[in-house]
Amino acid sequence: MNKATTTDISGVAPAASLAASSPDGLVVKFAADDPLPLDGGGTLTPYEIAYQTYGTLNSAKSNVVLVFHALTGDQHAANIHPVTGKPGWWETMVGPGKPIDTNLLYVICANIIGGCMGSTGPCSIDPATSKPYGLKFPVITVADMVRAQIRLLDRLEIPDLFCAIGGSMGGMQVLELAASYGDRLFAAVPIASAARHSSQNIAFHEVGRQAVMADPHWHGGRYLEEDTNPRKGLAVARMAAHITYLSDEALHRKFGRNLQDRDRLAFGFDADFQVESYLRHQGYRFVDRFDANSYLYITRAMDYFDLSAEHGGILANAFKNTKTRFCVVSFTSDWLYPTRDSREIVHALNAVAANVSFVEIESDNGHDSFLLDEPEFFATVSGFVNAAARARGLEIVPQDAAFSGG
Amino acid sequence: MNKATTTDISGVAPAASLAASSPDGLVVKFAADDPLPLDGGGTLTPYEIAYQTYGTLNSAKSNVVLVFHALTGDQHAANIHPVTGKPGWWETMVGPGKPIDTNLLYVICANIIGGCMGSTGPCSIDPATSKPYGLKFPVITVADMVRAQIRLLDRLEIPDLFCAIGGSMGGMQVLELAASYGDRLFAAVPIASAARHSSQNIAFHEVGRQAVMADPHWHGGRYLEEDTNPRKGLAVARMAAHITYLSDEALHRKFGRNLQDRDRLAFGFDADFQVESYLRHQGYRFVDRFDANSYLYITRAMDYFDLSAEHGGILANAFKNTKTRFCVVSFTSDWLYPTRDSREIVHALNAVAANVSFVEIESDNGHDSFLLDEPEFFATVSGFVNAAARARGLEIVPQDAAFSGG
Repeated sequence: MNKATTTDISGVAPAASLAASSPDGLVVKFAADDPLPLDGGGTLTPYEIAYQTYGTLNSAKSNVVLVFHALTGDQHAANIHPVTGKPGWWETMVGPGKPIDTNLLYVICANIIGGCMGSTGPCSIDPATSKPYGLKFPVITVADMVRAQIRLLDRLEIPDLFCAIGGSMGGMQVLELAASYGDRLFAAVPIASAARHSSQNIAFHEVGRQAVMADPHWHGGRYLEEDTNPRKGLAVARMAAHITYLSDEALHRKFGRNLQDRDRLAFGFDADFQVESYLRHQGYRFVDRFDANSYLYITRAMDYFDLSAEHGGILANAFKNTKTRFCVVSFTSDWLYPTRDSREIVHALNAVAANVSFVEIESDNGHDSFLLDEPEFFATVSGFVNAAARARGLEIVPQDAAFSGG
Repeated sequence: MNKATTTDISGVAPAASLAASSPDGLVVKFAADDPLPLDGGGTLTPYEIAYQTYGTLNSAKSNVVLVFHALTGDQHAANIHPVTGKPGWWETMVGPGKPIDTNLLYVICANIIGGCMGSTGPCSIDPATSKPYGLKFPVITVADMVRAQIRLLDRLEIPDLFCAIGGSMGGMQVLELAASYGDRLFAAVPIASAARHSSQNIAFHEVGRQAVMADPHWHGGRYLEEDTNPRKGLAVARMAAHITYLSDEALHRKFGRNLQDRDRLAFGFDADFQVESYLRHQGYRFVDRFDANSYLYITRAMDYFDLSAEHGGILANAFKNTKTRFCVVSFTSDWLYPTRDSREIVHALNAVAANVSFVEIESDNGHDSFLLDEPEFFATVSGFVNAAARARGLEIVPQDAAFSGG
């Protein structure tokens, strides 16, 4: 009667590590004579950055938008994902006629270092041992991720950016870029983000890491050498995190207390409720495309992020003399990076008389709102980007020009 | 440099199962001729209920308070805990001169069935196999827990209760008791509770269960037979749950981004931040006193709780013709059982013209507020209990009588 099922999926090699060794897309390689200095000391070398581009670079190179992905995202923002076969994670935002309009703009989206979709990370081969890094990979920071992407821009001979945009950890990278390379940035859109990770955020990340490390298939991070994979641990980590990406209201609206494929309680430990079934699905789908050690490293980088601490404890100092124009966006039901975190950024920008607009979008979709179909959000980004493009002297083709008789 | 430590504590027999086989306190045994009918069908037999009492039963038996414990609580509300050696979980509330004043009142607190501190649960011996039940233990409900405690009262020859009180799952039991045995209940205090478990609550519980079941030491629930213990899985479950018991504000106030025993980031996966160290401690301390299968069964019972569904979908029907006086309490920063859940209870009680007062306590301590030193909360309970005692004709000795010259 009391059947408890957890699908046995241990010991299967991670798809993500395969993707990392043969990425589907563009890659820039930085050889041993061009190491990446790291905040933790030392360097990363050699390293590679995998990226995608959308749209066309104009002759003045003045139309470049850098899109930063979030914790579990990657460079496949607006194309079919080579591992999952699903649409890119930001197809709603990036494309022809979309708020980031690739008819006008040239979009670059790179996999962060520490990631697992082609850029160098813990599942890459450590040249010192000819084995996967595992925990020998250096702990990286958000600033390290941004520094690596600046190197990519240098290699691509792109002197500056029209715009940097991203949600969640993507927003942290936007802020870091604006603070450290502000002279190369015309416009910045940090979304559903924060200038530092809160205690609660660190706590949720720590639970996820402990779940991964509790899985005996993790093998102290050496699971690739052991030809296994801490899938159960990573799935639990993802399930816990996934709850934090949604709002209580969204869960209630989507699932309530609805039962899964049954008309009464089963009095067992199978997924009785739809929300349980949904979470299990989210957890196990995730491990097919993501590397467990990358999850440890990237959550750690987010925990470490504290832009104020990087600038003597005063956030405004991060943006002193900035000429970048900012659009800060938050969502009412986001309890992971609540509006007060965005307000803190806005206050700091105001304190240095920066050009900043702030929009709190009414939505019950929680933190994940920035990935979903949110018309007011699209209108906000579109409006800001178009105005910035005009200020930058980029030619705008009105979307209804073809239909205009005037 | 990148040291990842999870203390290796697998394979240690659970202290909780030891406690269950030799509980320190009072026990009532119900033999095979006195089975407990269960909501899931069938019966539990034989079964035992372990309990504690505080204060003295008056001759009229009119001064009995039943205290219900929460998910991870037990009967040791106001005495040194036999396993942990720590003070009872509600010493602040129950005792001489406390809001539940044992100078006047006789308090009973029983371990719920399904629990692991002496009452029959999944770590008890199944008479059919002479082995621990494990997952052969029947799935129980909050109503089953309450029914068992009513049997206990019958056995103790206590006809009715002056008051029933409890927080979180304890509050659910208060509501269930008021709905099903209202004629035996004079006053009821459901605290930080809800008439049904939300989708988000179910989701968090499911993550905890998946963490336990992902631990290979769980052995499909047969870990006692295998002489092992899914400690890592249970610790992860507890860590995730623990975050939900606290508020973002409380975590920020207590820990912020403070570092643990170091003055700079270590660039590794040790507990860099105090909040990480605290969570790990909470997780691993918990497994010393709690049984993993009990955790599965009790979270399931909470998920199943829906008092409205038990009464034709209309919560007010649960309380029709009630003569019980209610005091419903919530806490402003409790996001697990937010104030709107308590308001729903109050609205239902108002709809049947029940005698109800409702107090939302201002506190930043989150759901766990009901276990903490909250003066306004104590004053509320004290005021309600004293007024109810007067209405019940119980003699009150003013706390400052000894010092009064008048």
